[in-house]
Amino acid sequence: MNLPNKNKKQEQPLYIKVNSKDNVAIIVNTGGLPGGTTFPCGLQLREHVPQGHKVALTDLAQGDAIIRYGEVIGYAVRPIAKGSWIDESLVTMPAAPGLDELPLGNRVPPMLPPLEGYTFEGYRNANGTVGTKNILGISASVQCVAGVLDYAVKKIKEEILPKYPNVDDVVALNHNYGCGVAINAPEAVVPIRTLQNLAVHPNFGGEIMVVGLGCEKLLPEQLVPGLDKTNILTLQEQQGFTNMVQAIMKMAEERLVKLNRRRRVTCPVSDLVVGLQCGGSDAFSGVTANPAVGYAADLLVRAGATVLFSEVTEVRDAIHLLTPRVVNEEVGRALIREMKYYDRYLDLGEVDRSANTAPGNKKGGLANIVEKALGSIAKSGSSPITEVLAPGEKPKRKGLIYAATPASDFICGTLQLASGIHVQVFTTGRGTPYGLAVAPVIKVSTRTALAEQWPDLIDVNAGTIATGEATIEEVGWEIFRLILDVASGRKKTWADHWGLYNALCLFNPGPVT
Amino acid sequence: MNLPNKNKKQEQPLYIKVNSKDNVAIIVNTGGLPGGTTFPCGLQLREHVPQGHKVALTDLAQGDAIIRYGEVIGYAVRPIAKGSWIDESLVTMPAAPGLDELPLGNRVPPMLPPLEGYTFEGYRNANGTVGTKNILGISASVQCVAGVLDYAVKKIKEEILPKYPNVDDVVALNHNYGCGVAINAPEAVVPIRTLQNLAVHPNFGGEIMVVGLGCEKLLPEQLVPGLDKTNILTLQEQQGFTNMVQAIMKMAEERLVKLNRRRRVTCPVSDLVVGLQCGGSDAFSGVTANPAVGYAADLLVRAGATVLFSEVTEVRDAIHLLTPRVVNEEVGRALIREMKYYDRYLDLGEVDRSANTAPGNKKGGLANIVEKALGSIAKSGSSPITEVLAPGEKPKRKGLIYAATPASDFICGTLQLASGIHVQVFTTGRGTPYGLAVAPVIKVSTRTALAEQWPDLIDVNAGTIATGEATIEEVGWEIFRLILDVASGRKKTWADHWGLYNALCLFNPGPVT
Ligand SMILES: [Ca+2]
Ligand SMILES: [Ca+2]
Ligand SMILES: [Ca+2]
Ligand SMILES: [Ca+2]
Ligand SMILES: [Ca+2]
Repeated sequence: MNLPNKNKKQEQPLYIKVNSKDNVAIIVNTGGLPGGTTFPCGLQLREHVPQGHKVALTDLAQGDAIIRYGEVIGYAVRPIAKGSWIDESLVTMPAAPGLDELPLGNRVPPMLPPLEGYTFEGYRNANGTVGTKNILGISASVQCVAGVLDYAVKKIKEEILPKYPNVDDVVALNHNYGCGVAINAPEAVVPIRTLQNLAVHPNFGGEIMVVGLGCEKLLPEQLVPGLDKTNILTLQEQQGFTNMVQAIMKMAEERLVKLNRRRRVTCPVSDLVVGLQCGGSDAFSGVTANPAVGYAADLLVRAGATVLFSEVTEVRDAIHLLTPRVVNEEVGRALIREMKYYDRYLDLGEVDRSANTAPGNKKGGLANIVEKALGSIAKSGSSPITEVLAPGEKPKRKGLIYAATPASDFICGTLQLASGIHVQVFTTGRGTPYGLAVAPVIKVSTRTALAEQWPDLIDVNAGTIATGEATIEEVGWEIFRLILDVASGRKKTWADHWGLYNALCLFNPGPVT
Repeated sequence: MNLPNKNKKQEQPLYIKVNSKDNVAIIVNTGGLPGGTTFPCGLQLREHVPQGHKVALTDLAQGDAIIRYGEVIGYAVRPIAKGSWIDESLVTMPAAPGLDELPLGNRVPPMLPPLEGYTFEGYRNANGTVGTKNILGISASVQCVAGVLDYAVKKIKEEILPKYPNVDDVVALNHNYGCGVAINAPEAVVPIRTLQNLAVHPNFGGEIMVVGLGCEKLLPEQLVPGLDKTNILTLQEQQGFTNMVQAIMKMAEERLVKLNRRRRVTCPVSDLVVGLQCGGSDAFSGVTANPAVGYAADLLVRAGATVLFSEVTEVRDAIHLLTPRVVNEEVGRALIREMKYYDRYLDLGEVDRSANTAPGNKKGGLANIVEKALGSIAKSGSSPITEVLAPGEKPKRKGLIYAATPASDFICGTLQLASGIHVQVFTTGRGTPYGLAVAPVIKVSTRTALAEQWPDLIDVNAGTIATGEATIEEVGWEIFRLILDVASGRKKTWADHWGLYNALCLFNPGPVT
């Protein structure tokens, strides 16, 4: 990347050109730069260009390819003079790469050298997995129990949890599924698998508790196959509301006693599963936060960890850059399968991948989903892709894994939790106050201005990369070290500090009834 | 109906035959009745028949129609002897009525005589509507703000609300929409309309407050068209989390001051909008609770109120009984339109209407969706159908209205709230602890056993109809009077007593991204 030199001040005009082939660059300065601004290279702006937006580095004729990240992000709808602002209205979107003739695993990156000497302090579970928090997770087989469960959990947290100081939290895994849905629809496999895998998240320490109603379609026994009856509480078998609440509290306390005995022990990084996500992206995402997270992902993979990246609509347009990286054809075919699944899913809804970009993405300088995708996949770093997961599946391999999910922050978060992540790293440009109760979320800002505006929400500022104050490598190491600190309970994310948590949100491609 | 005489004891064997054409009846006695039991009419049971399940009143040959409510609910899969238990495995489901040749409005019921002399005490709003609660409703334009909003609302309820004793509650209208969705999908009209109409629910007294993020797809201005900027709070414009929370609290308090001045005044029943729903149905639903609610619905309509009934998959199989009741062909065509919409929606998900019935319905004696639907439409009473609403629309007429919604309790509840209901009457056989924060929910039990088991959740016991202790008319009047008491704040439902509320659940037939 052609980044500004380290330690330059932000006051001078700065742009970032990512790849030597690029004929556009993005403006770094907060507030953008006015027409007439001249850069050290001689480039002069013909008009005001907002921060994060693209400036033409050469004259472009109508129909010329607009190139960023060394890739075509679109074509000029009319002649564009060098120094002009290229807003999204000047860019036509190229067709998505076809899925049937992509090379699979033809340029598998070499394994990076192992990284030794790093550990974290985790809760070792009986089944060998490790937790990064110590939580009583209460599963629900159906949405009907949510009101009662919320009421009971509030009382548990007020009256019982203080007696068990080694337990971090009690979390009701409420959701909108279980009845009033087409439980036999072909697509029902997705939400059911998600709930099954959530129920046994490693942060719950193997203590299972399922609250059901009694007449629902999704049976509590289905939620955790082989589950003992003593772990299921059925509201229709209770004598009224007061008894329901008492029964939930009693069952919870039995488990809190056991969870309270958990102690952190030193664990190898290879026990960690880290999820990556972005939300509220801007044009900096792909040059600051996402590459830094990509660097941290490489460090994690080198140390033996499992790293999941996701968000189908944000990799779809860069899929030709991912298929060469899969370790074998089988993994490649699984990657294509997930892309085709989503193409069809969107098609049935009479939309296409362009439905992904939000107004805020465009305000942030992203012309379209192609540009967004190229920036998004920077999170994946440079490792080989060892496995591909359908939504909510658990990994069987270590290393870098593609876990297919929608890009929706809440659905992606829920599905990655089902896949067993211990920590999520979340990059944001526009800014979003996102958090998950089940696993810590580290929020990485793409811009210094956001980090300064939200000092009590943003955990890492990657905006320093754009201004030359830090390198991608430096911020990557900062993120890597913070992941280990947070996983060990030594440091708290801002979301955990405030208890700022979003509800679970299932991906249910099947109909409701 | 051929119901047992009033004041008979439950100890003697009882069955209910609904229509003179029926060749089956359902067993009333708790626990069912053993083989050998002989009824006063001479019928003898050939085997144990569970409570709520069907007994054959005549010998049936293979393929013979099984008739309940005077309608065919299915065909015998093998010969069935008189006195046998007809469980769902013995019943094949008939095809759903075709939608293209149904008579529209050919048997419009006569208007029932007006019912004078009833009023309730409501909060009159500036726009003429009336509220039954006094609530500050805080709308969210996107799911990203939910964590912050929950945090702020908790503080408002602890620190500010006690200063404004005339205000009942502060409710965050959180949902899973606004971004990460295909906002331009044809189907997006449904969730957007729902959120728009929820924001201005009459119980909010015309005080509007919208919290947005700043980069979402659903703009706060779209949520309430014509909304003044002073009613919108954008998190991305705030200086960090602490300031976000303070800003929400300040904006809320300004509105609480005004809401605190609301006072109840005497209002005609014609100002009331009452929603009807059922959940966790059993074979008694159609003979006890639903007919009693239907009687109350007739009383409401006679007194000038608006009554909404819903749940497409539960009327679809009885649609031929509804189309004759529409006031004109236009309303009839709208009814057909909503049925076709849902047929197609389910078809795209590769399921059909049989996806509705839950295991609990079948345990409760309902063989299939045809039997369930015939019992479900009893809620609609005997009035003409004056209007049909697409999901989440507001009524323009009074009287009995069909408001199309999924049958899912939470989605139906959310959509009926968007349509402006002031009170929901909810019948349940299996039992479900359901509640809505925005409007009171009156829960009516179909069985005495449930009312006795859940005395602190069930508001009305209609099970007395099955045992002959009360008539449909008596329970209907009880429900009607309770609706007016609850609407007036004179009586509290159990859900309101406990603060037992389920989250809103949008109907989003469009894709997520
Ligand atoms: Ca993203
Ligand atoms: Ca996302
Ligand atoms: Ca129902
Ligand atoms: Ca139902
Ligand atoms: Ca329902």
